[in-house]
Amino acid sequence: MRDVAVIGVGMTKFGERWDKQLRDLFVEAGNEALKDANMGRDEVQALFVGNFSAGSFVGQEHVAPLLSDYLSLKSKPAFRVESACASSAMAFNLACMAVASGTYDIVMVGGVEKMTDVSAPEATSVYAKAMDAEWESFFGLTLPAAFALIARRHFVQYGTKPEQLAMVSVKNHRNGSKNPLAQFQFEVTVERVLSSPIVSDPLHVLDCSPVTDGAAAVILCSAELARKYTDTPVYVLGFGVASDSMALHDRPDITTLGAVVKASRQAYRMAGIEPKDVDVAELHDSFTIAEIILYEDLGFCEKGKGGMMIQEGETEIGGRIPVNPSGGLKARGHPVGASGAAQIVEIVKQLRGEAGRRQVPGAEIGMTQSMGGTASTCAVHIFGRRKR
Amino acid sequence: MRDVAVIGVGMTKFGERWDKQLRDLFVEAGNEALKDANMGRDEVQALFVGNFSAGSFVGQEHVAPLLSDYLSLKSKPAFRVESACASSAMAFNLACMAVASGTYDIVMVGGVEKMTDVSAPEATSVYAKAMDAEWESFFGLTLPAAFALIARRHFVQYGTKPEQLAMVSVKNHRNGSKNPLAQFQFEVTVERVLSSPIVSDPLHVLDCSPVTDGAAAVILCSAELARKYTDTPVYVLGFGVASDSMALHDRPDITTLGAVVKASRQAYRMAGIEPKDVDVAELHDSFTIAEIILYEDLGFCEKGKGGMMIQEGETEIGGRIPVNPSGGLKARGHPVGASGAAQIVEIVKQLRGEAGRRQVPGAEIGMTQSMGGTASTCAVHIFGRRKR
Repeated sequence: MRDVAVIGVGMTKFGERWDKQLRDLFVEAGNEALKDANMGRDEVQALFVGNFSAGSFVGQEHVAPLLSDYLSLKSKPAFRVESACASSAMAFNLACMAVASGTYDIVMVGGVEKMTDVSAPEATSVYAKAMDAEWESFFGLTLPAAFALIARRHFVQYGTKPEQLAMVSVKNHRNGSKNPLAQFQFEVTVERVLSSPIVSDPLHVLDCSPVTDGAAAVILCSAELARKYTDTPVYVLGFGVASDSMALHDRPDITTLGAVVKASRQAYRMAGIEPKDVDVAELHDSFTIAEIILYEDLGFCEKGKGGMMIQEGETEIGGRIPVNPSGGLKARGHPVGASGAAQIVEIVKQLRGEAGRRQVPGAEIGMTQSMGGTASTCAVHIFGRRKR
Repeated sequence: MRDVAVIGVGMTKFGERWDKQLRDLFVEAGNEALKDANMGRDEVQALFVGNFSAGSFVGQEHVAPLLSDYLSLKSKPAFRVESACASSAMAFNLACMAVASGTYDIVMVGGVEKMTDVSAPEATSVYAKAMDAEWESFFGLTLPAAFALIARRHFVQYGTKPEQLAMVSVKNHRNGSKNPLAQFQFEVTVERVLSSPIVSDPLHVLDCSPVTDGAAAVILCSAELARKYTDTPVYVLGFGVASDSMALHDRPDITTLGAVVKASRQAYRMAGIEPKDVDVAELHDSFTIAEIILYEDLGFCEKGKGGMMIQEGETEIGGRIPVNPSGGLKARGHPVGASGAAQIVEIVKQLRGEAGRRQVPGAEIGMTQSMGGTASTCAVHIFGRRKR
């Protein structure tokens, strides 16, 4: 399979975007990615869009040709991929294969979600469609409640503490305060997180990623073409994708995310690296407990030591493995279908050295990890400044 | 890019399947495809699922890992693709690229829709999400109404007649009466079609494909592996995918489906064939007018002569280019996300000579054509008994 590279990235300001519709958000991100790649829109041969639930949020399915149309890509193939919160990460993965197969040389991959047109309770119901409708959400389980169950069990098995969860929020808000496109650009303290309202015990509102509007897009091409467009291509070194049982009750241990373990091991193998080689990572901190478990399941630390890893500052910018310099889902915001693409935008900026006040110095290898629902889907991509 | 082949197919009975849920339908089709391929489920490396709107029909997004889970595919990568009525055709296209890239050797591709859990008016509203929500469905345009506009204009420009539309229904019902898995296994007459209730003038209810539950699945592998599993592999000779403006009002001429023209020309070129070389075709007859326009836009006849083509019996089994021997969407039924895969199931059976009473004698080259909404998406695949 031939190598592929990212040569352009773009994203909108994330937040409550009352000024823009779904299509407008995507056009904004797509145009920025084209500009960043120094490329005319006629050169793009296909579009891959990640979107979770525009059907429920704004009454629109079949978004791919709509977005292609509004981006003036003119009759090009346009694919929509849906994998809950991992939608645009999975779209990126399929786009990698499409370019690797030789079918296309240059494609645009992006994600978009317009969530604030519905009320918060409605949004919670839509989120719940990412879990098992028959055996989980029908009985009232919501995504925050599912992660609250996971957190409680992690507390019991490994002694993890609410304060450690709060530290994830503190770190990601601090990073987000340095990201002009983040939804939340303010800092929080452990005390403020722990005194914020409970959403589902032990998770406070400041343990949860927000409801967000936004879009992100990248331009992907075959590695041999990349230098025609940029002096700083970012290569895809490896990837892994895995699934897990949909319902939590079918898993042997809810404190281990099996799909994350499998997807990351595939990605490390394909890239020929080990966890310690990762210089910067964007992880799926939909809830603070998720980021702690991800440290463990990605092999950044021993199982059960995720709480200590955040406590000791190892994932701060400047730490051993900086995680979520963008602010993560927590502070950058989480427009569900766009988050996977936004992670890639951040890692590309980090590897190019263009991340401004939140730059991880000298980053050479970056990782994105995205998951859907309670990690029934996980996609991991590893990027590098140099080819495999 | 390396060649790929279909080595196993399966589908459920289409119809009102009160006995089964979404997941059960897919498991039934998937298991049958595995059995047909003489393959254990552990050999499948990834799952590609086409589904239009389970989020709206049954409150379930993120269906790919759910279906993988219930099929016991165990933690394998599972992708969901949504392109309205072309969902599983587009999933098949991406699966072809994934195998061609060398990422996977053997994958399952399928589609499923469970539509009868909502009322008919609700179903019509869900269908409408396949069009432009802001500029079409918001103002009350439904899919039947959109195709009614197209039909009226075709009448004016080319002199096509309601009787000719009815003949499409008559042919497809006749074929469907020979298909034990079809939703409607009864014949109709031109008189009966024309005296059936009007849905949107000039389209009668017997001009429209029905609301259907069902699933279909195929096993796809690299061509070099195919003979290990079967003596009758069916090779993918070529494909084409294109999009068009979402809203009808943005098209220069609503009687020509631009995406169909573009996708089919790409597919012919890749396969190295011409329209006259097609021995059997499964086309997207969501409405009878669609099949007539498809004859024209696929190059089976001159523009404007589609009405004459059905009238002269050229697309009957035994005619010049038999179309929809399965009964098509009209009589086989149209479980939106499954229809693209069901077309592939039929063409594979036809090329293997296993289509029973509806067999097209000596078929060597087959075509599937699937489209979403008003053909804002079109995917064409060409299959053959021999490699390219």
